[in-house]
Amino acid sequence: MAAGKGTRLKSKRPKVLHEIGGRALLLHVIAAAEKVVSADRIYCVIGHEADRVRAAVESTGVRFVLQPEQRGTGHALQMVKAFFVLSGLPVPENLLVLSGDVPLIRPETITAICDIHLREHAAMTILTAVPPDPTGYGRVLRLAPGRPEVSAIVEQKSLAPDQLATSEINSGIYCFHTAALFEKLDLLSTDNAHGEFYLTDVAAMLVADSQRVVAVKAESVDEVLGANTIAEMMQLDAAMRLVTARRLMVAGVTIFRPETTVIDSEVTVGPDTVIEPYVQLLGATKIGSECRIRSYSVIQDTVIGDSVTVRNGCIMDSATIADSAILGPYAHLRPESRIGTGAHVGNFVETKKVTLGAGSKANHLNYLGDAVIGSGVNVGAGAITCNYDGVHKHQTTIGDNVFVGSDSTLVAPVTIESGSYIAAGSCITENVPEGALALGRARQVTKPGWVEKKNKEKEAC
Amino acid sequence: MAAGKGTRLKSKRPKVLHEIGGRALLLHVIAAAEKVVSADRIYCVIGHEADRVRAAVESTGVRFVLQPEQRGTGHALQMVKAFFVLSGLPVPENLLVLSGDVPLIRPETITAICDIHLREHAAMTILTAVPPDPTGYGRVLRLAPGRPEVSAIVEQKSLAPDQLATSEINSGIYCFHTAALFEKLDLLSTDNAHGEFYLTDVAAMLVADSQRVVAVKAESVDEVLGANTIAEMMQLDAAMRLVTARRLMVAGVTIFRPETTVIDSEVTVGPDTVIEPYVQLLGATKIGSECRIRSYSVIQDTVIGDSVTVRNGCIMDSATIADSAILGPYAHLRPESRIGTGAHVGNFVETKKVTLGAGSKANHLNYLGDAVIGSGVNVGAGAITCNYDGVHKHQTTIGDNVFVGSDSTLVAPVTIESGSYIAAGSCITENVPEGALALGRARQVTKPGWVEKKNKEKEAC
Amino acid sequence: MAAGKGTRLKSKRPKVLHEIGGRALLLHVIAAAEKVVSADRIYCVIGHEADRVRAAVESTGVRFVLQPEQRGTGHALQMVKAFFVLSGLPVPENLLVLSGDVPLIRPETITAICDIHLREHAAMTILTAVPPDPTGYGRVLRLAPGRPEVSAIVEQKSLAPDQLATSEINSGIYCFHTAALFEKLDLLSTDNAHGEFYLTDVAAMLVADSQRVVAVKAESVDEVLGANTIAEMMQLDAAMRLVTARRLMVAGVTIFRPETTVIDSEVTVGPDTVIEPYVQLLGATKIGSECRIRSYSVIQDTVIGDSVTVRNGCIMDSATIADSAILGPYAHLRPESRIGTGAHVGNFVETKKVTLGAGSKANHLNYLGDAVIGSGVNVGAGAITCNYDGVHKHQTTIGDNVFVGSDSTLVAPVTIESGSYIAAGSCITENVPEGALALGRARQVTKPGWVEKKNKEKEAC
Repeated sequence: MAAGKGTRLKSKRPKVLHEIGGRALLLHVIAAAEKVVSADRIYCVIGHEADRVRAAVESTGVRFVLQPEQRGTGHALQMVKAFFVLSGLPVPENLLVLSGDVPLIRPETITAICDIHLREHAAMTILTAVPPDPTGYGRVLRLAPGRPEVSAIVEQKSLAPDQLATSEINSGIYCFHTAALFEKLDLLSTDNAHGEFYLTDVAAMLVADSQRVVAVKAESVDEVLGANTIAEMMQLDAAMRLVTARRLMVAGVTIFRPETTVIDSEVTVGPDTVIEPYVQLLGATKIGSECRIRSYSVIQDTVIGDSVTVRNGCIMDSATIADSAILGPYAHLRPESRIGTGAHVGNFVETKKVTLGAGSKANHLNYLGDAVIGSGVNVGAGAITCNYDGVHKHQTTIGDNVFVGSDSTLVAPVTIESGSYIAAGSCITENVPEGALALGRARQVTKPGWVEKKNKEKEAC
Repeated sequence: MAAGKGTRLKSKRPKVLHEIGGRALLLHVIAAAEKVVSADRIYCVIGHEADRVRAAVESTGVRFVLQPEQRGTGHALQMVKAFFVLSGLPVPENLLVLSGDVPLIRPETITAICDIHLREHAAMTILTAVPPDPTGYGRVLRLAPGRPEVSAIVEQKSLAPDQLATSEINSGIYCFHTAALFEKLDLLSTDNAHGEFYLTDVAAMLVADSQRVVAVKAESVDEVLGANTIAEMMQLDAAMRLVTARRLMVAGVTIFRPETTVIDSEVTVGPDTVIEPYVQLLGATKIGSECRIRSYSVIQDTVIGDSVTVRNGCIMDSATIADSAILGPYAHLRPESRIGTGAHVGNFVETKKVTLGAGSKANHLNYLGDAVIGSGVNVGAGAITCNYDGVHKHQTTIGDNVFVGSDSTLVAPVTIESGSYIAAGSCITENVPEGALALGRARQVTKPGWVEKKNKEKEAC
Repeated sequence: MAAGKGTRLKSKRPKVLHEIGGRALLLHVIAAAEKVVSADRIYCVIGHEADRVRAAVESTGVRFVLQPEQRGTGHALQMVKAFFVLSGLPVPENLLVLSGDVPLIRPETITAICDIHLREHAAMTILTAVPPDPTGYGRVLRLAPGRPEVSAIVEQKSLAPDQLATSEINSGIYCFHTAALFEKLDLLSTDNAHGEFYLTDVAAMLVADSQRVVAVKAESVDEVLGANTIAEMMQLDAAMRLVTARRLMVAGVTIFRPETTVIDSEVTVGPDTVIEPYVQLLGATKIGSECRIRSYSVIQDTVIGDSVTVRNGCIMDSATIADSAILGPYAHLRPESRIGTGAHVGNFVETKKVTLGAGSKANHLNYLGDAVIGSGVNVGAGAITCNYDGVHKHQTTIGDNVFVGSDSTLVAPVTIESGSYIAAGSCITENVPEGALALGRARQVTKPGWVEKKNKEKEAC
């Protein structure tokens, strides 16, 4: 169910696309479901901003059912029924209904509700929970305490005085025998306060029909709770990331102030790596062992070897860092940066589509783009690759053991062969053969007494 | 009341000038009072470091009364009385007394105490509160429970055993009928432990005189509590900012880890903007909708349009950013930076008094100061405006669609007309006409075999 | 006791070398012990990764006893006994046994246990504590409530039903009469579940022998608790640093969000200095009064004067900053940077082994290494010292009141005398005499109409 608007959020973004733990609510739900069934057996009911929602989750391989108007949960499943008729896809014997805005649902719970549904030969199985304060939630009444059979789902305002104490709530997550569901869907009415088709009415119909409706309790309340406000989502986000940090600590990673880090759930980190406060490890980042990642670094989709030092404030995206490299502070490694074993990338240095060989150094104020740099190279302070001529990007190739003097400008395309030496301050526009010296700078001219003369001229004015 | 020293803070800074929520305690109190009366009807009693306090709040337009020695709250109001006599200013019929170090007082509460004071025709109205633990505070005793009339204000140590349970405390905030107050002020004595004139004695005199003294409870205890230590002030600061973050979230702004952000209370942010952890939005900053502000960015007094991306670690002060611009990481926008629609300012770039036209890019290691740059311009990596000759600042003017090669040096004053092309590594000292190429670099000289020769020379030594 | 592995940590690093509050657990314990006795009277029992542990703490001057196999606490003291025999060092009359992984032990508590041990003429004195939940800990049973004499140490699983309520636990910290201890050590057996020699068995033997075993309670539970998981260590770390932040606030330092700062315990800060959130003050850093340290700055082993402004994101290591200097944002001061009174080091500037004189400025994109720079110097944007020729580092010397133009390259060794002027974009390879102008740049060549011509050529292709 991913068709709703989430009006309370005051947001143009559909509710199910709000993010926690680094991905959209809906993607969390799909990921949990995918652990149980293949993606092509998952149907997303989309409606509000349908194209935007589809675009955001399409790559998972799920199918989509359009609910053009949002007329209630029952209406959503009427659309699903119509979809099966029109698409000719085989109708599954049972149907699990999840909420796209309940992101903490675990695969284990999905499996549990399905198993019980089948074991109980139920027409409908309701996932329930027992929160500390059930006020406001629809309550699930059982035929008798401890028995699985449900007698009714009752809204808060319809509770009889002796039912107020019931604390088992309806999570809105159900498993249906499809034929039983589809039969009842056509009988739903909109004769209620909001004029919508409610799926909960199906429960009443099935019970009236003497069909089997059962309930199963979720292990924890958290996983069935949705977030209705941005503030609540932010709490889920913090909780989710702390779980990841704790898991890493148990595996031998030292994380100072774990609650201050932002670590996505897929990130892996080797033992004896130390992560300082305020570090962000995002996406598919993989970090080896015995590294130190200093504060304020933000590392996205990057693979880092062992014994790497990442100093403060490094930003990395889709880079690869070999063992024992030393980076930063304030190094910015953009996609396709490949830093060799023991290489150094220093402060205020930006790399993009660059291979930096083993033991090479680019330590100060460099921009290196579209370059292949060998091993043992020293790139001096302020040296820059001019990879763009206003129309095309060009390649810079530097061999092994080259000395690139400070503040030199390498105008690509250009090749600087191994063992050569670029004088400081040079603008290099032609290839440099192996072992050569290249200069491209004006000779110094010194004018003694110039300052005094100039001051006198000024006074004379 | 802003004359005290705040000895417990161990600070040379007067207590009322300590800051929470981005401004001095006293300024919070004045701001609340100004919502109720105009600034010229607010009188600040200053004494300790009077000049410093005056300088810090003068721009609000309040008036000042000097209390040269700090001899108690009664003495402070004696000074106010003397001030009215000497200044000839009209004496207001009623006088509200606020504390300069009680910063959370709300305008609604100020209005409430004044309204009740007038309605009750009181000589003195006392704002009270009921904290969880009243120990240590002066207690306000009422004639009878639920009645407004006060029978006495009693210090903790003077409480009779049957009064110890009284939990209604004196906030130190009062409203007086001015004539009644002024009459009693001269009768105050310093016959007490600290040898000071106490305003609370006025209450006793008025009660003895059968004048009407009433009490009104503040809605929350917080707003009448002062901060006596720096640690307590820091707690108020965090609380105050969290209120702002929560208000923004309710209005549709996503703020990850809201408790980690530092957001001043006047800041506005449009819906669907995402604010990452550890962001600081200060002063009069205004941010549009659908922006993303990444971590560690600090944005002061800056106006940002819609759909702007601010990457990690950007610092901005008094800048203006048009829609869809992309900034950072580590861009530093100093005052009078005006970034055009869809323009890019990249990493390790500093701008100051710069206009950057729509779609223009300055992405790597630039210093751009005192420059007007057109649209569609590409400023290459490391290009720098030389705006200072040691004496004066000069202007650089760049037209539209100019290509400024990497590592070029633009010596101001200089004009580079539209459509022209500056070769990489050039030092530009003369104007460049439209569509021209300008070079200012030495031709490359290559000396084959130089490295080997040099090594041999060394060995020969 | 520092020989254990800490298997539960899943770490190759020995447990006692894990860090909290900026130093290894074992160093905290040694520091506490050193406040009571001189280092040469402290013996570290090392075993697991003995060389690594020795290397980490050797500089404290303690002595080491090797426990080649880890066969229990009794075995560790057998090694100590053997060590005294072999080394010929004088055997102390009493022996205090501390745990290398119980880092919060206070010198006052060490003194207290020793004093009571002597006063009670005890053979063994046991430090105990009363945690909220004693489950799992060995319990210390006293002869009678309130009496010092101990009747037994009983493991959790051996507690009789009427002993389960006993909440006084054994801390594992003991003081022994050495002769009594050494006599019993040889009688220890490994006849227990883990096959280890247990020091607690000595207590039983001494009691059986009618020797005096007494207990003394620690003032707080925290100081006798070890950390068994990384998560627990991280909690100790945060708690320890918050103590430091609170101590500074009491002394007049304003620290916004004190729980977000990382301040090592030896750091000193003067009153009226304001520390913003997310600041890290490490090692032996000393900061004067009335400074402002802005967020995300990390300052290690650096001495800062009064009224210094450190803007956002500065990184400093072993630098010295004189009064009223202004640094950053994003200034990187490496070791031996000495910044003069009122000097400015601006954004994206790196300094290393540099003296910058009073009032001098290096504000934009500079690399300054191995340089002595006088007072009143202006180092223009992007100017760089070329201190490395691929083999050696060389010195740059700049006199007073020199103007170094933007983007200039100073090739060391080079001396630029006082009052001289370096033109923008120059490469300076020769010394510049006092008051001279030095240029080293190519003259600009402008080719009108070049862009159009080139575009036509392209179209012609």
